[in-house]
Amino acid sequence: MNSLYCVTLEDVQEAEKSIRGFVHTTPVMTNSSLDALAARKLFFKCELLQKTGSFKIRGALNAVSKLPADKTVAVVTHSSGNHGQALALAAHMKGIPAHVVVPRNAASCKKAAICGYGARIVECDPTDESRIEVAAQTVKETGGILVHSNQDPAVIAGQGTIGLEILQQVPGVQAIIIPVGGGGMLAGIAIAVKAIRPEVKIFAAEPVNADDCYRSKRNGKLTLNASPPNTIADSVKTSIGHCTWPIIRDVVDDVFVVTEKEIKVATRLVWERMKLLIEPTAGLGLAVVLSTQFKEVTSDLKNICVVLCGGNIDLGSADWLNEQD
Amino acid sequence: MNSLYCVTLEDVQEAEKSIRGFVHTTPVMTNSSLDALAARKLFFKCELLQKTGSFKIRGALNAVSKLPADKTVAVVTHSSGNHGQALALAAHMKGIPAHVVVPRNAASCKKAAICGYGARIVECDPTDESRIEVAAQTVKETGGILVHSNQDPAVIAGQGTIGLEILQQVPGVQAIIIPVGGGGMLAGIAIAVKAIRPEVKIFAAEPVNADDCYRSKRNGKLTLNASPPNTIADSVKTSIGHCTWPIIRDVVDDVFVVTEKEIKVATRLVWERMKLLIEPTAGLGLAVVLSTQFKEVTSDLKNICVVLCGGNIDLGSADWLNEQD
Repeated sequence: MNSLYCVTLEDVQEAEKSIRGFVHTTPVMTNSSLDALAARKLFFKCELLQKTGSFKIRGALNAVSKLPADKTVAVVTHSSGNHGQALALAAHMKGIPAHVVVPRNAASCKKAAICGYGARIVECDPTDESRIEVAAQTVKETGGILVHSNQDPAVIAGQGTIGLEILQQVPGVQAIIIPVGGGGMLAGIAIAVKAIRPEVKIFAAEPVNADDCYRSKRNGKLTLNASPPNTIADSVKTSIGHCTWPIIRDVVDDVFVVTEKEIKVATRLVWERMKLLIEPTAGLGLAVVLSTQFKEVTSDLKNICVVLCGGNIDLGSADWLNEQD
Repeated sequence: MNSLYCVTLEDVQEAEKSIRGFVHTTPVMTNSSLDALAARKLFFKCELLQKTGSFKIRGALNAVSKLPADKTVAVVTHSSGNHGQALALAAHMKGIPAHVVVPRNAASCKKAAICGYGARIVECDPTDESRIEVAAQTVKETGGILVHSNQDPAVIAGQGTIGLEILQQVPGVQAIIIPVGGGGMLAGIAIAVKAIRPEVKIFAAEPVNADDCYRSKRNGKLTLNASPPNTIADSVKTSIGHCTWPIIRDVVDDVFVVTEKEIKVATRLVWERMKLLIEPTAGLGLAVVLSTQFKEVTSDLKNICVVLCGGNIDLGSADWLNEQD
């Protein structure tokens, strides 16, 4: 089955060997008060405790590792977020220069993190067109290789290593809930887990305000977000793409959408009950688990793994925590 | 040596057996960017991930476990904070009613947590005198047994189990830094660790605004805080007492004090770099490690364990995070 897609189980297994020792095997945590709220046994895969504060280092490092060392003069990407930091560190680990295209209005803490890992920042206008254009220009100028944050097969394979770890750490897992933006993590985990344990359900979690994945599944064809989405889950504003869509279409069991309020409530619950400083995007999975819709559809699934994908939040702009609605 | 004090290594080892399986063996985490800032290898003992969100369940559960089951009708304490929650859960686990005396102006989230574990709240005026008087009254009315939050020997022995775990989890540890309020955790860890590995340094971390332990060590006699201290590290406003002082005097190597600003900076660093939502009291240890004074005194100690004692913070009042000084 897997050979139909850009990534196979074997790619994920190779990625696992390639990044082992350079990234953390993140812990799986449990919390009895959240179990009680969800009326299930929940297992939280803590990728916020990963190097660079998100899972993205897995894919970035696998992609950089696969480049021919003697011919690669630099890597380039466009990302103001977690992939930008991850590629910066991955390139630094391998001794390759990195150029990261970032909108000029990006939060200064994000730029500082990227620079902190030794990458060069290239500013662009805050539009998709400008990002793509400036990245192409940077590739041309530096001779670097573009590493896309979610459609590069080596990136998808790297993210899939999360799935291999979950199967080891939670032998009784019956379902895994994964936030979806570009779909790299979702597709990678789906390919790996379904090849080994096809009965484990793979569910995507998405903000209703950025529901391209949900609509794509419903329509049976790749359907992008019409306009830039407005959601507090800022790491999943991206739409899924041509590499991840076929996997999502065929291998992912279902997509659940949640409101901004549900995301905020779930994020705050993880902060207060688990003492883990997740970013709102990482609240998507718990928000789905606690939604009425999910409770009705899947009451037979008792052991659920929720991927807490990252913890890169700008504390200076977390005012929403104290909003009452 | 230990027989001079209210707690011995054997008491701590018994406590360990008694609470095993009911509390978490909390993880030890590391962080390379904080290592770089400190110019040492740091090991963070994550008691914020303990049941009830702080280490206090260890001592509370050990104390409740030692009470004669057939004769104990209830337990009583005065604490609006972590010990109140911990005793509430410990009593609930053992099927004993708990009455917790709390100042009427305590944050409603703290009261809710205590009630959430099934304890009864008894309100008092927000003064030490009223707390003690109402607790005595409650003991009289209920026939319950008072479990003091930091001077009860069984509580101190319970907190000491953190030290046994650290020696197992960090075999190369050279020093342990522990926040000090009443000194129960400090004394318990000191007794256990020094009996097994006397060369491991035991350091206390204290706010300069609540420096009773520092002044007691300097004066060579128990010296209480003169007036209620004003510090963001609200779990260590208490002074050390008659049970913990002899141990602190003889067995603890030194006490380091840090400013409110140093506590805030350290707390925010743990939030941002480690993604762990510690309470400010738990920032004390890192604040000490990063202080100029500590760097000068102890440059030969490379492997330092910092106890992150708890994560019970009222998010609604965390405005200080965005203060500039």
